[in-house]
Amino acid sequence: MSDRLRPESAIDLADSAGILLEVLRDAPPLTHCITNAVVTGFTANVLLAVGAAPAMVDIVGEAGMFAGVASGLLINLGTPTPEQRAAALEAVAGATTSGTPWVLDPVAIGALPVRTGLAHELVDQRPTAVRGNASEILALAGLSAGGRGVDATDTTDAAADAAASLARRFGCVVAVSGPIDLITDGERALRLANGHELLTRVTGGGCALGAVMAAFLGAARATGTDALTAVAAASLVYTIAAEQAARRSSGPGSFAVALLDALAAVSAEDIVAAARVEGGTW
Amino acid sequence: MSDRLRPESAIDLADSAGILLEVLRDAPPLTHCITNAVVTGFTANVLLAVGAAPAMVDIVGEAGMFAGVASGLLINLGTPTPEQRAAALEAVAGATTSGTPWVLDPVAIGALPVRTGLAHELVDQRPTAVRGNASEILALAGLSAGGRGVDATDTTDAAADAAASLARRFGCVVAVSGPIDLITDGERALRLANGHELLTRVTGGGCALGAVMAAFLGAARATGTDALTAVAAASLVYTIAAEQAARRSSGPGSFAVALLDALAAVSAEDIVAAARVEGGTW
Amino acid sequence: MSDRLRPESAIDLADSAGILLEVLRDAPPLTHCITNAVVTGFTANVLLAVGAAPAMVDIVGEAGMFAGVASGLLINLGTPTPEQRAAALEAVAGATTSGTPWVLDPVAIGALPVRTGLAHELVDQRPTAVRGNASEILALAGLSAGGRGVDATDTTDAAADAAASLARRFGCVVAVSGPIDLITDGERALRLANGHELLTRVTGGGCALGAVMAAFLGAARATGTDALTAVAAASLVYTIAAEQAARRSSGPGSFAVALLDALAAVSAEDIVAAARVEGGTW
Repeated sequence: MSDRLRPESAIDLADSAGILLEVLRDAPPLTHCITNAVVTGFTANVLLAVGAAPAMVDIVGEAGMFAGVASGLLINLGTPTPEQRAAALEAVAGATTSGTPWVLDPVAIGALPVRTGLAHELVDQRPTAVRGNASEILALAGLSAGGRGVDATDTTDAAADAAASLARRFGCVVAVSGPIDLITDGERALRLANGHELLTRVTGGGCALGAVMAAFLGAARATGTDALTAVAAASLVYTIAAEQAARRSSGPGSFAVALLDALAAVSAEDIVAAARVEGGTW
Repeated sequence: MSDRLRPESAIDLADSAGILLEVLRDAPPLTHCITNAVVTGFTANVLLAVGAAPAMVDIVGEAGMFAGVASGLLINLGTPTPEQRAAALEAVAGATTSGTPWVLDPVAIGALPVRTGLAHELVDQRPTAVRGNASEILALAGLSAGGRGVDATDTTDAAADAAASLARRFGCVVAVSGPIDLITDGERALRLANGHELLTRVTGGGCALGAVMAAFLGAARATGTDALTAVAAASLVYTIAAEQAARRSSGPGSFAVALLDALAAVSAEDIVAAARVEGGTW
Repeated sequence: MSDRLRPESAIDLADSAGILLEVLRDAPPLTHCITNAVVTGFTANVLLAVGAAPAMVDIVGEAGMFAGVASGLLINLGTPTPEQRAAALEAVAGATTSGTPWVLDPVAIGALPVRTGLAHELVDQRPTAVRGNASEILALAGLSAGGRGVDATDTTDAAADAAASLARRFGCVVAVSGPIDLITDGERALRLANGHELLTRVTGGGCALGAVMAAFLGAARATGTDALTAVAAASLVYTIAAEQAARRSSGPGSFAVALLDALAAVSAEDIVAAARVEGGTW
C-alpha cells in the first residue's frame, strides 16, 4: 500500500456510512441469508437490530427465487449440509440473474474439502464481496491450507496481497476481518481500526458481519453507492457498535446482548465521531 | 364483528389465562416442536421459562410416535428441509391418531412454493390452531400471494374475514398476530391489545408464541378448557410478559433476555391486572 | 459406594480442576462438536467463554478428518438428522484412529428408536466419556425405556449402578447429571454437589456441559491427566460458574447471559474455594 488516504477521504467514508445506515433504517433491505446452524439466530437478531429485514431461506426450490427478490444475499459456509450446498448454488444463480448483490463467507475453508470445493465454485460466480479472516482469504486465493477450524492463524497483513489479488481476479470487494479490518477492491484499500476483542469471544461475531454487509450492499444499491463503501460502512457501523457494547459489558454473554442494543441505537453521528479509518492505493 | 364482548367476558378470559398458567406450571406439558433453525433455541428457552417442557423431535422415525405422547405439538414452516417436511407429516399423523392438539405456523407462505404447498397439505389435516401474521393468514386462505419474507404487509383487520373463513372451513382456531392480535374460531372473535413493538425486533418473537400456544393447548386439554380460550390465554401471557420486559430493556438484545425472565415470573394476578381484551361474534 | 473420599482427595480434585482450567485457557483446545440444532449457538458460546476453541463440523466428508485433528470431540444426539448420524459415525472413526478423546451425550434415548439405536452403536466404539441424565444412563445400560423427552424421570442414585456398569463394560467415564452429579470410571465415584436449578431452565444447560467435558479432556490429554479427573473438573468449573451466575440473575434469561460471563471470569481460586465434592470406591 503506497499512500495514505487523505484525511478528508476517511471523513467521507464515515459520512457515507452514517448516511447508508439511515437509508437502511428508512427502507429495511430484505436480506437473504444461507448461513450456518450455529449462528442463524444471532445473525437474524443482528440484522433486525441494525434495522434490516432478515430471511433465512435455505432450501432447494425456494432459495433461487427468493434471492431474485431480495435486496442482498449472504452465503456462509459454516455448516454446509447437502441441502444448503444445493440451495446456495441456486441462490447465487438467482442473485446473478437479478443483480442482487451477494456476500461469500468461506468459513474454515482450507483443510476441510467439502466447503473448500464449494467456496471455489462460488467465487467463480463473482460475488459482490468476500468476507473472511486472514487464513480463509489466503486459502481462497490458493496460498494456504487455511486456519485451524474457524480461527485465523495468519495476520491481516499477511493476507493483504491475497485479498487484492482475489479482488482483481473476481471483480469483487474483499474484507479481511481481524484486529485491523482490511477492505479492498484491488485498487483501493481501507484499514479500519474499530472493533473489540470480545467480538472473537461470541460465536457469530464475524459471521453476522457478513450478513450486515449484505444488508448494506442492498441499501447501497438503492442509492448508487459503490460496493467498497458499502462493505466498509457495514464494518464501521458494526465495529463501532461493538465498542459501545464492550463499555457496557462484563463478559462475552453481556457483550452479545449489549451489541444488539448498540446496533439498534448507534447513530450516524456516533459513526462520524468514532471512525478510525486509514486508506490508500496499491 | 358486530358486538363487543360484555366486560365480564373479557375478565373471564384473563381469569382463565391465569388459571391455565398455573395448571401448566404445576404439570409442565411436554411440548413437541418441529420448528425452524433460526429460532429453535429461543423457542425452547421461551417454553422452559413459562414453565413447559420443550422437546424438538424433528426426524423421520421419531416425530410420529413422539407426537402421540406429547401434550401439544407445533409445526412451524420457517426453514422446512426435506427431513423436516417428512417429519412434520409424520408428526401430524401421530397427533391426529392420539388427539394431541397441534398448532400450524405457516411462516412466509405465499410466494415461496415448497412451504406453501406443505402448509395447504397440513391445514387439510385440521390443526387445532393456526398462528400467523396477516399476510400468512391471507395466503393460507388463498386470498393473497403473501408478504415479503417473514414480514406482514397486510393489517390484522384486512385478514379478519380470511381468519374466520379458515377457522370455519378447517374447524380450527386462527390467531392473527400484529399490533392487535385477533383470535377467532369462526364464531367468536377476540382482539387482544397487549404486546410491544420490540417483539418484532427479536427473531422468533412470533414463532415462539406458536410454541406457547401448543403448550397452553396441552394444559387446556387436561382441564377441559376450549381451544379458543387456550390460544388467547397463551397470547395474553406472552404479550403481557413482553410488556413487562420492555419496561426493563434498553434495546432488542436486553428485551429478549428480559422476556425470558418475565415469562418465568409473570403471575396470574399480573394477567388479570394487565389484560386488554375486546371480543364479539361475527 | 462404601467409602468417603479422604478430604484431601476432594481438595486434590479442586486443585486439578483449577490447573486444567488454566492449561485450557493457555492453549485453547480445538473442540469438535456434532450437536443438536437447539443448542449449537449456546454450546459454542459456552466453549468460547470458558476459553476453548469450538468448531461445529457435522457434515459427511469433513467430520472424520476434523475429529482426527481436534483436541476433543462431542457427539450429542439431540436432533440427529440422517446427515448428522453419518457424520457422527465418521467422526468417531476419525477420533478413534487419532486417539482424540470423545464424549457421547445420548439425549432423550430410550423410547425414541433412531437415536437409541445410534447411541448403542456409538457406545460400542468406546467413548472416553458418556454424559446424560439418570434416565438416559439407565436407558443406555438397557435398564429403562428412558425419560420423558429430555427430562430425567429417574434420580441420580437410581442410575449409580447402571453408570458403574456402563463404565466398566465400555472402559469409559460416565457422568450422570442431576442435583448431585455422579461421575465414575467403574472403580472410583465422585459426587459433586455444585450447580443451580436454573441450569434446568435454560436449553442446552446440560448439552453444553458435554462440550466442556470434551474441551477439558483435550486439555487433560496434553497434560497427562486422567479422564475421570478431566470430566469432574469440567463439571466443577461449569457448575461453580453457574452458582456465580445465579447470584447475579433475576430469571432464566439473565442467568444464561451471566453464565457466559461467569465462565469467562471464574478462576482456579474460585474452584478451590467453592468445590463441594465427595467420593469413594465401589
